[in-house]
Amino acid sequence: MIEEMGQKAKSAAKEMARAPSHKKNEVLRTIAALLETEQDRILSANQQDIDEAEIQGLSGSMIDRLSLQGRLTGIIGDIDRVIALEDPVGERFDALNLPNGLTVCKQRVPIGVLGVIYESRPNVTLDIAALAIKTGNCVILRGGSETIRSNRELVRVIHTALVQSGLPPTAIQFVDDPDRRHVKDLLHHHQYVDLIIPRGGAKLHQFCRENSMIPVITGGIGVCHLYVDQSADLEKSVDVVFNAKTQRPTVCNALDTLLMHHDIAPAFLPLVVQRLKEAGVTFRFDENSWKLLNEEEKSSGQVAKPEDWETEWLDLILGIKIVENLDEAIDHIATCSTGHSDGILTHNEGRAQKFVNEVDSSTVYVNASTRFTDGGQMGLGAEVAISTQKLHARGPMGLKEITTYKWVVEGNYTVRS
Amino acid sequence: MIEEMGQKAKSAAKEMARAPSHKKNEVLRTIAALLETEQDRILSANQQDIDEAEIQGLSGSMIDRLSLQGRLTGIIGDIDRVIALEDPVGERFDALNLPNGLTVCKQRVPIGVLGVIYESRPNVTLDIAALAIKTGNCVILRGGSETIRSNRELVRVIHTALVQSGLPPTAIQFVDDPDRRHVKDLLHHHQYVDLIIPRGGAKLHQFCRENSMIPVITGGIGVCHLYVDQSADLEKSVDVVFNAKTQRPTVCNALDTLLMHHDIAPAFLPLVVQRLKEAGVTFRFDENSWKLLNEEEKSSGQVAKPEDWETEWLDLILGIKIVENLDEAIDHIATCSTGHSDGILTHNEGRAQKFVNEVDSSTVYVNASTRFTDGGQMGLGAEVAISTQKLHARGPMGLKEITTYKWVVEGNYTVRS
Repeated sequence: MIEEMGQKAKSAAKEMARAPSHKKNEVLRTIAALLETEQDRILSANQQDIDEAEIQGLSGSMIDRLSLQGRLTGIIGDIDRVIALEDPVGERFDALNLPNGLTVCKQRVPIGVLGVIYESRPNVTLDIAALAIKTGNCVILRGGSETIRSNRELVRVIHTALVQSGLPPTAIQFVDDPDRRHVKDLLHHHQYVDLIIPRGGAKLHQFCRENSMIPVITGGIGVCHLYVDQSADLEKSVDVVFNAKTQRPTVCNALDTLLMHHDIAPAFLPLVVQRLKEAGVTFRFDENSWKLLNEEEKSSGQVAKPEDWETEWLDLILGIKIVENLDEAIDHIATCSTGHSDGILTHNEGRAQKFVNEVDSSTVYVNASTRFTDGGQMGLGAEVAISTQKLHARGPMGLKEITTYKWVVEGNYTVRS
Repeated sequence: MIEEMGQKAKSAAKEMARAPSHKKNEVLRTIAALLETEQDRILSANQQDIDEAEIQGLSGSMIDRLSLQGRLTGIIGDIDRVIALEDPVGERFDALNLPNGLTVCKQRVPIGVLGVIYESRPNVTLDIAALAIKTGNCVILRGGSETIRSNRELVRVIHTALVQSGLPPTAIQFVDDPDRRHVKDLLHHHQYVDLIIPRGGAKLHQFCRENSMIPVITGGIGVCHLYVDQSADLEKSVDVVFNAKTQRPTVCNALDTLLMHHDIAPAFLPLVVQRLKEAGVTFRFDENSWKLLNEEEKSSGQVAKPEDWETEWLDLILGIKIVENLDEAIDHIATCSTGHSDGILTHNEGRAQKFVNEVDSSTVYVNASTRFTDGGQMGLGAEVAISTQKLHARGPMGLKEITTYKWVVEGNYTVRS
């Protein structure tokens, strides 16, 4: 099954790579229109998924993630934004005239075939399809079994749109069988698939890394830090910490651990605890901050266990630790961060610079909330994933990040001497 | 053993990432100087490797590849060239001021820890070390057992230079044990190693792809094509074909298959056969070209077997095939090329453009020999590898290609609304 899908994708990839921008945008416009006209059918399939999930006893947050009810308008808006972005394919850059007489440049091209493995959220089907179509990439989608009815309807819409514009429907294929062995099979077909993008929890990422013969973009797991320096404005810092922790606690760029310089801890700690407690946050304190708390403040949390510092909370929980200086903060981040999003709040330029240079995370912040690590927020329009690995792309991956380049070398019957 | 090396490399990587350019260049200058003053010791160790290889009955070409005799001056020249190149680390690019009040840019950083697995050629030890030091990367080197004495001496020189400049000698480590299980072990340590670069034959690349939990740069295997179009200048085309096939037949960017348009075949084929035969080339002809040959020409080759079209010759052998048109040439290349280097010789701009757009190889040529796919020739100064995969980098990989970036986001206590 995967073998056949791979062959079809590889063959569709040739056509998609040559498709002009106006045709790719036309497909996206048709998808947006069909989501509107076909919404009853889509939402009814989605409701069946929800009903089944309730029978199976899935958690409320899982059911929330798989629901498309009331969300199609937002998704159509996202597709419109992708249409408005520039198509990166074909761009030429890094041009050089060489002494050997050659003209050399790089030309941006699609990666080819992407394998995307994800869970629950059916909106990922449309996000990925829109970004892939815009860049002339092909995709083999492997969604979760709990949304198979929703995905089936969405993929039908995508196929209709591709066919209407004379592009191959096999550009976007969907593994319509919940059997888990297809995942492993997909990870082995390096002849056809150029890149694997897992979108899910740590276990899925680990499974892909351990079993794939194809490069894998790992990411999406964020143990995120803010370090409040002795020079920071404390009132404003509380606002930033509050935003980073509470604005949407269930996502990967939400704050997990607050580090603070010991000089400001006696003044800053009570401000933070009081403000965040009101939003329902509970705390994991290190020994030194615990000593500074009164009984009422202590009641809002507990002493942290060692493993707490490496935990992605995805919840209204915040670790708090007092450090001696910037070096200790940087060392703590080096040990506990997943390399997703880490920041410093400071008025001292030298220390801001040191933090930026020495913290090895995909996104490093100075005086801002960690919540901005997001394709839309960072000017990419949309994202296929947030990479926390080192190769190819780091941080939010938008259109450009699912392209690569070829070298184009032009001469005049030029030979090497 | 690898576990401990990995930990040390990870720790050295922090120091190397912060090392200023002048200090990294100082290390390279010391290495160049020591290669001169220590040459007797190095060449004597290398001679022992050669003696042992002769006892073991290794082939002449293998022994040639492991020899440093008479080659140190060239290697010193290569290191000088790396010193003269600009250090890419720290460069900021893709800067944006966003409507949400943030300033966003990317800052170029080292990848971190590279694992390099290679065979025979001990000059790779110095090439990789020089490029890694220049970019603040750390390396775990796994050279072939047949050059272990040479590599031991070269690594001693590198360590002396690092220590003299106050940088950690663990930046460049060497697996000084021929046991093959260390290779597999290295491929599993994704906590410490960010990228695997195999430099060797197809089997080594396949082994790495199948066993690595770390991203692997595959490449270096070239089944390379030139297509001579009906509009090409035939005399000049013979020169290019001659250069691509004979200038250095044992390397990956040498020509393997010549495709020609059937209109020019009656005139072009005899020119090619005659000119290349003189240099000792033998041929694998397709059925259609075989029919055009006289008896003498036939004696310089044979009818090609199907597998010949997918063979990297690395020798004075050339496949020749007549095609109906450009589409057939592009299809043949799509089927048989390894995506290394493929070119067209033509005076027709439209067909040149079509070839460039539709041939999906790391380097695509118009009117030039394939022999230019090389870091030095393409303006990169040097190379760690030639990538034929899609992720991160394609074609020759120089300094910039062993760096990555982090996003730097600066605000004024900016929060997400």
